[in-house]
Amino acid sequence: MAVYTEVTDEELSAFIATYEIGRVLSFKGIAEGVENTNYFLHTSAGAYIVTLYEKRVRADDLPFFLGLMEHLARAGLPCPQPVRNRQGDASARLAGRPAAVIEFLEGLSLRRPTARHCHAVGAALARLHLAGRDFPILRPNALSLSGWPDLFAAAERDGDRVAPGLVERTRRELDEVTRLWPRGLPSGVIHADLFTDNVLFIGDQVSGLIDFYFACMDAFAYDLAICLNAWCFEPDYSFNITKGRALLKGYLNVRPLSGGERTALPMLARGAALRFLLTRAYD
Amino acid sequence: MAVYTEVTDEELSAFIATYEIGRVLSFKGIAEGVENTNYFLHTSAGAYIVTLYEKRVRADDLPFFLGLMEHLARAGLPCPQPVRNRQGDASARLAGRPAAVIEFLEGLSLRRPTARHCHAVGAALARLHLAGRDFPILRPNALSLSGWPDLFAAAERDGDRVAPGLVERTRRELDEVTRLWPRGLPSGVIHADLFTDNVLFIGDQVSGLIDFYFACMDAFAYDLAICLNAWCFEPDYSFNITKGRALLKGYLNVRPLSGGERTALPMLARGAALRFLLTRAYD
Repeated sequence: MAVYTEVTDEELSAFIATYEIGRVLSFKGIAEGVENTNYFLHTSAGAYIVTLYEKRVRADDLPFFLGLMEHLARAGLPCPQPVRNRQGDASARLAGRPAAVIEFLEGLSLRRPTARHCHAVGAALARLHLAGRDFPILRPNALSLSGWPDLFAAAERDGDRVAPGLVERTRRELDEVTRLWPRGLPSGVIHADLFTDNVLFIGDQVSGLIDFYFACMDAFAYDLAICLNAWCFEPDYSFNITKGRALLKGYLNVRPLSGGERTALPMLARGAALRFLLTRAYD
Repeated sequence: MAVYTEVTDEELSAFIATYEIGRVLSFKGIAEGVENTNYFLHTSAGAYIVTLYEKRVRADDLPFFLGLMEHLARAGLPCPQPVRNRQGDASARLAGRPAAVIEFLEGLSLRRPTARHCHAVGAALARLHLAGRDFPILRPNALSLSGWPDLFAAAERDGDRVAPGLVERTRRELDEVTRLWPRGLPSGVIHADLFTDNVLFIGDQVSGLIDFYFACMDAFAYDLAICLNAWCFEPDYSFNITKGRALLKGYLNVRPLSGGERTALPMLARGAALRFLLTRAYD
C-alpha cells in the first residue's frame, strides 16, 4: 500500500513522450498494490494507471502478464488493456524500473460483497478460464504445491508467534494436502489471486478484473477454490453457503465442472487456504 | 504519504448519498498528504478529492480553510472548490473523521521548477494576498514567532542527532530572529505553506493552489519569504538568484511591496527557514 519508487518530472515527461496518449494533466501516486508502485495518470487522451514493477515481478514475466490482459480484453473480458508505446512495446523502463501504461477502469472493489456480487464474480472467472484457452504464452505456477515446502521451511521458525501450535498444524495439513492433491484436472490460464480487491464493480456488475501478476497455468478448479475462500467467508471465519452457492452457480452457468473437478474442490480449497497462509506468513 | 483512515463501502455510499454528485464510479486512496487522508473520487458528475482530516487539523478550523478556498475560487484563483452537501455544509463526517469533498484540479506539482514557474507562482501568491483581503473569518498563525520557543524546547533534546551543533546554532538563530523580527507589516490571509508540492502546473501555467491547511493571518511578505525559500534554492543549498528574481518580479507585477516589506524580507526568510526546521525537527 505504498509508492515505492518516485518518478521525477523529467523522467515522466520523457516516458510519456514515447506514447501516443497526449499531454499529462495529472499524475498521482495511488495507495494501492502491495507488490508494485501505481500512479493515476490523466492525459488529454484519457485516464491510465502507470505501474512500476518492483522486485517481486520479474521483467521476463511481463510479456505473459501484459499479453494476457490484452488477450482477455480482446475476448470481451473487463480487463485493463496495456497501452503500447510508439515502438509497439507494452512495457518499457521508468525511474529504473520496468513499467507499463494501462487503461484505467472505473469501479469499486468491495470489502463486503453480497451473494449477488459472488454470482457475478463466479461468472467472470469462468469467462476468464474460457477466454484464456487460446492464449499462446505459458507460465507455470511458481506458487503451486511444489513451491509450498520451501515457503513452509522459511516460515517455520517464527510461525508459532502468529498463533500457538500453528507450525505443527500447518505441517500436518501440508503433508495431507501433498499426499491427496488432485492431479490431471482441466487446466489453463488462471488468475490465481482473484480476491475482492482485484475485482471492480459498478453496482452489481463486474466492471474490472485487475492485477494479473500471479496469473499462471494451473487447474481451473483451483482458481475457483481460491475465489470461494476469498469471497464466501464472513469476518468471523464462518462459511456463507448462500454466497458459496451463488459463486458456484455463476461459474457453472458459463463453464460446467467435470465430476473430477467437483470431487476435487474441497481438497483444492484446503490447498488454496494453505498457499495464502504460507505466502502471508513468509511475507 | 499514506491512507491513515480506511473507508468501508457502506460508509462511502451513505456519505456520497448526502451530496448531489451522482453515483460513485471509482474511489482510490492517494499516496499524498502528510497530514490528511486523501481519496480520488470519480462519480457520474465529475472528479473530486475526498479529504479526511486527521488529528492535526482541528474541525473548528474547517470553516476557515474551506470557506477560504471557496472565497479565493470565486475571486478567480485556481483553488479547488469544496462541494457542499444537500444540507449546505462544506464538511461532514466520514469514517469517524471530519471530511470534505473537494473539486479535483488537474496539474502536476514540480520537483524542479524553472525560473518561469517561479515567476508564475510569485504572481499567483500576490493574487492570493489581494483576493484574501475581504475574507471575513480570522485565524491567527499558530506557527508564528510566538509558537517557536515551544517547538524548539520539544526538539532540543534530540536535535544534535540530526546534525552536530544544530541545537546551539538554532538557539542563537531563534534569539536573534526573535529580537529583530519585523513588526507592523501589511498583513492578511497567507497560504503559509506554498511549497512546490502545493502548486499544480499545466505547462508553465499555475493550474492549482492546494492544501490550505496552514493558511492564517500574517504578514504578506512572510508568505513571500516562505516561497523564496521553498522555490529558489538548488539541491546543493545554493540560492538561485535567477529564480529568486523571477519569483519576486511575478509577485511585484501584481502587488508592489512597501519599503518596509523589502527591508524586512531577509529577516523574514530567516524566520521562515527556522519555522520549517523546527516543525520538521519536532515531527
